[in-house]
Amino acid sequence: MAYIKRIMIIALLILGSATILKAEDGHALWLRSNSRVKVSISCPVRSSIIDIAIDELRKGWLGKENMVFKLNLNKNPAIKGDGFQLEESAISAQTELGLLYGAYELLRRQYLNLPQRKFISNPSYSRRILNHWDNLDGSVERGYAGGSIFWGEKENGLSITEQDKEKWSAYARANASIGINGAVLNNVNASAKILSKPYLEKVSAIAQRLRPYGIKTYLSVNFSSPVLIGKLKKADPLDPQVQQWWKDKVKEIYALIPDFGGFLVKANSEGQPGPQDYGRTHVDGANMMADALAPFNGIVMWRAFVYNPSPEDRTKQAYKEFLPLDGAFRKNVILQVKNGPLDFQPREPFSPLFGAMSKTPVMPEFQITQEYLGGSRQLVFLSTLWEECLNSDTYKNGKGSTVAACTDGSLSKTDFTAIAGVANIGNDVNWTGHTFAQANWYAFGRLAWNNKLESKVIAAEWIKQTFLDKKERKTDANFVKTTQRIMMESRGAAVDYMMPLGLHHIFAEGHHYGPAPWFSNDKIRADWTSVYYHKADTAGIGFDRTRRGSGAVDQYHEPLSSTFNNLSSCPEMYLLWFHHVPWSYRLKNGNDLWTELCIRYDHGVQAVRSFQKDWDRMNGAIDSERFAEVQSKLRTQSRDAQIWKDACLLYFQQFSKREIPFEIERPVHNLGTLKELTKSKDYH
Amino acid sequence: MAYIKRIMIIALLILGSATILKAEDGHALWLRSNSRVKVSISCPVRSSIIDIAIDELRKGWLGKENMVFKLNLNKNPAIKGDGFQLEESAISAQTELGLLYGAYELLRRQYLNLPQRKFISNPSYSRRILNHWDNLDGSVERGYAGGSIFWGEKENGLSITEQDKEKWSAYARANASIGINGAVLNNVNASAKILSKPYLEKVSAIAQRLRPYGIKTYLSVNFSSPVLIGKLKKADPLDPQVQQWWKDKVKEIYALIPDFGGFLVKANSEGQPGPQDYGRTHVDGANMMADALAPFNGIVMWRAFVYNPSPEDRTKQAYKEFLPLDGAFRKNVILQVKNGPLDFQPREPFSPLFGAMSKTPVMPEFQITQEYLGGSRQLVFLSTLWEECLNSDTYKNGKGSTVAACTDGSLSKTDFTAIAGVANIGNDVNWTGHTFAQANWYAFGRLAWNNKLESKVIAAEWIKQTFLDKKERKTDANFVKTTQRIMMESRGAAVDYMMPLGLHHIFAEGHHYGPAPWFSNDKIRADWTSVYYHKADTAGIGFDRTRRGSGAVDQYHEPLSSTFNNLSSCPEMYLLWFHHVPWSYRLKNGNDLWTELCIRYDHGVQAVRSFQKDWDRMNGAIDSERFAEVQSKLRTQSRDAQIWKDACLLYFQQFSKREIPFEIERPVHNLGTLKELTKSKDYH
Repeated sequence: MAYIKRIMIIALLILGSATILKAEDGHALWLRSNSRVKVSISCPVRSSIIDIAIDELRKGWLGKENMVFKLNLNKNPAIKGDGFQLEESAISAQTELGLLYGAYELLRRQYLNLPQRKFISNPSYSRRILNHWDNLDGSVERGYAGGSIFWGEKENGLSITEQDKEKWSAYARANASIGINGAVLNNVNASAKILSKPYLEKVSAIAQRLRPYGIKTYLSVNFSSPVLIGKLKKADPLDPQVQQWWKDKVKEIYALIPDFGGFLVKANSEGQPGPQDYGRTHVDGANMMADALAPFNGIVMWRAFVYNPSPEDRTKQAYKEFLPLDGAFRKNVILQVKNGPLDFQPREPFSPLFGAMSKTPVMPEFQITQEYLGGSRQLVFLSTLWEECLNSDTYKNGKGSTVAACTDGSLSKTDFTAIAGVANIGNDVNWTGHTFAQANWYAFGRLAWNNKLESKVIAAEWIKQTFLDKKERKTDANFVKTTQRIMMESRGAAVDYMMPLGLHHIFAEGHHYGPAPWFSNDKIRADWTSVYYHKADTAGIGFDRTRRGSGAVDQYHEPLSSTFNNLSSCPEMYLLWFHHVPWSYRLKNGNDLWTELCIRYDHGVQAVRSFQKDWDRMNGAIDSERFAEVQSKLRTQSRDAQIWKDACLLYFQQFSKREIPFEIERPVHNLGTLKELTKSKDYH
Repeated sequence: MAYIKRIMIIALLILGSATILKAEDGHALWLRSNSRVKVSISCPVRSSIIDIAIDELRKGWLGKENMVFKLNLNKNPAIKGDGFQLEESAISAQTELGLLYGAYELLRRQYLNLPQRKFISNPSYSRRILNHWDNLDGSVERGYAGGSIFWGEKENGLSITEQDKEKWSAYARANASIGINGAVLNNVNASAKILSKPYLEKVSAIAQRLRPYGIKTYLSVNFSSPVLIGKLKKADPLDPQVQQWWKDKVKEIYALIPDFGGFLVKANSEGQPGPQDYGRTHVDGANMMADALAPFNGIVMWRAFVYNPSPEDRTKQAYKEFLPLDGAFRKNVILQVKNGPLDFQPREPFSPLFGAMSKTPVMPEFQITQEYLGGSRQLVFLSTLWEECLNSDTYKNGKGSTVAACTDGSLSKTDFTAIAGVANIGNDVNWTGHTFAQANWYAFGRLAWNNKLESKVIAAEWIKQTFLDKKERKTDANFVKTTQRIMMESRGAAVDYMMPLGLHHIFAEGHHYGPAPWFSNDKIRADWTSVYYHKADTAGIGFDRTRRGSGAVDQYHEPLSSTFNNLSSCPEMYLLWFHHVPWSYRLKNGNDLWTELCIRYDHGVQAVRSFQKDWDRMNGAIDSERFAEVQSKLRTQSRDAQIWKDACLLYFQQFSKREIPFEIERPVHNLGTLKELTKSKDYH
């Protein structure tokens, strides 16, 4: 018996250690390298950033053993901003941060076994910023990965533990490794309290942890702060007292955080206060803040996401509001524009503002958190969505005036350029809830650094770093290829099972997870309902934004405006965005609109099912923890894709009055059940 | 304007009348004929039954116009019991009821355009009875079609309205049309109150409505009635006071209801009182009641559904309990035996009691209400289940001793024979909740009349009568064929998505609708849990009832007992009923057990999806009301089949530790979610 017991104990120990070896909770993100290869690093200067670069190279070195490797600061004019040059035995850069970015690039290449060659890499945007929609109570608006990593429930969000500090450092390191150099620490729907002393002191503490990794700290500010936390009666931007209040406040901030980045402002939008409350313009408001920030090189990121409860097509309003203001903003103001004219939908045409502003810098705002793309339940790789937007041609200065070119300074020179991503980061062990949501954080950083990178390259990079077997230093080639394919097809699949052919914003109220094309409510503004957007009736479906409709097409430059305006030339992926189309309309593949809609919804479902099968076939290729997590979430995604399909087809069928084509699977839900289900608080 | 208004009113009237023409709420069941063809019916005798026969023939006549048709009472020895002979211009029978049954058969044949030929039809069983599990508070145990048609919430269930009376007549007519001649009006879990005066008076009122259609009234009685409503201290069947109490009570009943049929008794079963409470046997209990009923030609139907919380295999207990009592029962006692030894599962082998009793008549109890087969949500045609049971060979007197032969008197002569079906009837407009559940009521009647009828014939009969276009007097041939195929495949599909290969009783606790193979609870008896029945472990799955296990196989006659005992000869449909089988066991088709289990579950899901598609393709072939109802229920069935598959495969996979084969669709639910879902009160 004693003998058997001993064997069992040994067996348990072996099992236990195997588990420990394989345990992957996702906390290490794409930074899982761990090397014992020795290297000698030299650098003429030392600083906290350089120290980190050297430390990272020493810990992660996978090049030649005992090599002597140099970090050089020099003035090579081919190297821009925080760019760098990789050489066989050195990294050169103009800035310390450039050396750090070079180090991460080198380590990535070593880890991925990529050829080491000499090349220069310069960032596409000078400011590459995460926007955290974190509230001071620790909740995260549209966050699906736990509470805020910055704020918390204790001590009004002001407590700071050692664990917090370590998390901030880990966060900063992850950002630096992909080139992100700024973070807005609080929600755009901002509490004025953030500018009060205790919170600024906490911001200073956070900034201390971010600074060594080159991450600048920014804050979202409430336009009414002078009233809400100052003792002023109003926040009128032309009021000298108000102006002085902001100047004093900015001074106070810079005393605490000398490298503070600036403000992000959501003003006169969805109930937020703004200059229009005092009869002033966005220019008046932005410039007031810009004047306060300018002495410290701070910037104002003024959000263009504004719309009023007016009869005007919501998608037209931002353009109409801001175009007349072009040229009136201070040089340190930049307009932050969401990729599409509506609101982070599964698919939108690009916002016409990108091609509209001539004298005002514009920065894209992408949403990394999956508000409208499945929360952290669904595997949707967003890089293809952003790539689609960046590569969209605005025709601002003729062909080739892509959104990328309109924003990265290549089309017109600006003092600075910027890009923002709404973070998907929370307190969850793996940071983002879904393992594959880490890929969206990663992809945002990589695209912010190089807006010409292809999504498929980013996907492969991320897969290898995230899942590579640390011991063997290799990843199953089939796993990489298959997972890359899943990622590349995932956003198209989501568009298909949610809102194909240009449909948009038919989500359930509030949670934005499930479908509710039926959603309509006389008590709220029309443009917060689904029926406003799809306009389905017995004649057809879609929002007429042609010249006979809202005329939104004319916010685009020719030839785009005519292309969009014309039913036959409008790209089918935007069809119902721009047109109210008869059910019998023939698409290019010969299907009528109703049939094609059905086939697209079904295709979305089938695609997720194929992802499931592909994933299940790879059981054993990676650690069992993350395998099981993804497997489980794909099941839910598959179920929910079917719910989307059934809800939309059964709802729209009431108008089309046509049979669902027999080549596709029948609905397995009834409309009434789905209406109840998606209303449920548990369903999101 | 007036003109337009008038046109609109006319249009509305046209629409309205079209709706009325097409409206089919299912209340008419299979009795939708409505003829204006004149006929002259003569009969030498008159009675309320004859009046009905004549009236039915007059109202439904679709034969030659102005024909003279005769109803003859004569003593043709080839006509048995309430049988009849159909001739070109006459129906002959020994009894008035025989004439009525002949009339319904004739009308059915006319309605279905079947050739009119001379033939005799005799009933397989003399008593063809519906068991209503209706409680006096108006609820129906395992009822899915609304409340009781006999009892209600008002006046302690004693109220009687004109509407009630009409409903009872309509109910009686429907039964008579398919040969049913008895109804137990209350739940086998009987309230003693049913034998109190006010309730007996209501029973008498119901009987008045059933009598003209030849339906005898029976009651379920509580064995403790002498204590509960009499003033006796005990209900000991050997106590003369108790015996007298029953004699007096029976006399009282027959004074009110002279053609009263008798008692149905559930004693010493699932908490019901019985003779064993006083140390007596089932014989003592049954005979006491039989003695009281004998003077009035009443019978006792004593249920054999008994089992104790003992370590003995539950499926063996009824046999062990009753076999020693064979021959000791009075002649007017019959044992009522459920088709299988467990409890109305999707598939069970026949109960060994059918082949066991030599001197005691045995009657089959089938469950028409779909307690374990999807309530009134799922389309499951049960005729094939009953046919499978009736045709099962018990080998009692060698080959050919089918369950049918063991119970219909053809194997050994008995004073009377009987068959019971637990009704699926409620207050819903269409009586049964699901339109297709009407087919199960219909099929039970038809099989009770003729236990050699084939299910596919019954299905076709029912489809044509139920859906035939009344105006055109024809049914779309494709509709009949396709619907017949759906019905014929439906029970096999349900077995596959619920409990293939002999699995049984892995339902969710309480509602018996959804899956809960995980269900286990230390606080209740083991044989009320799922794990007791499937016994899945890492070695395999299934209940070992071989001679090395519980030995239940030996309750069957040879060669069956050896056939079942031997893994290689055991029919695969009963595999896991009789064997604990290794996951790697190879089935006859070459698949290992786990793979086959997965494929079967998936096949069940795919089958329901095919039913959906088949049904949807027939849109327009029948009225839109019932089409939409069935379409909607098929959706739910499809969704729930998938839930069954996912729950069972994911649960059993924990033991098999094998991959779900890649040729089938992956689960779209997670086990945890399903455990919560099937626990939910809304999910049944």
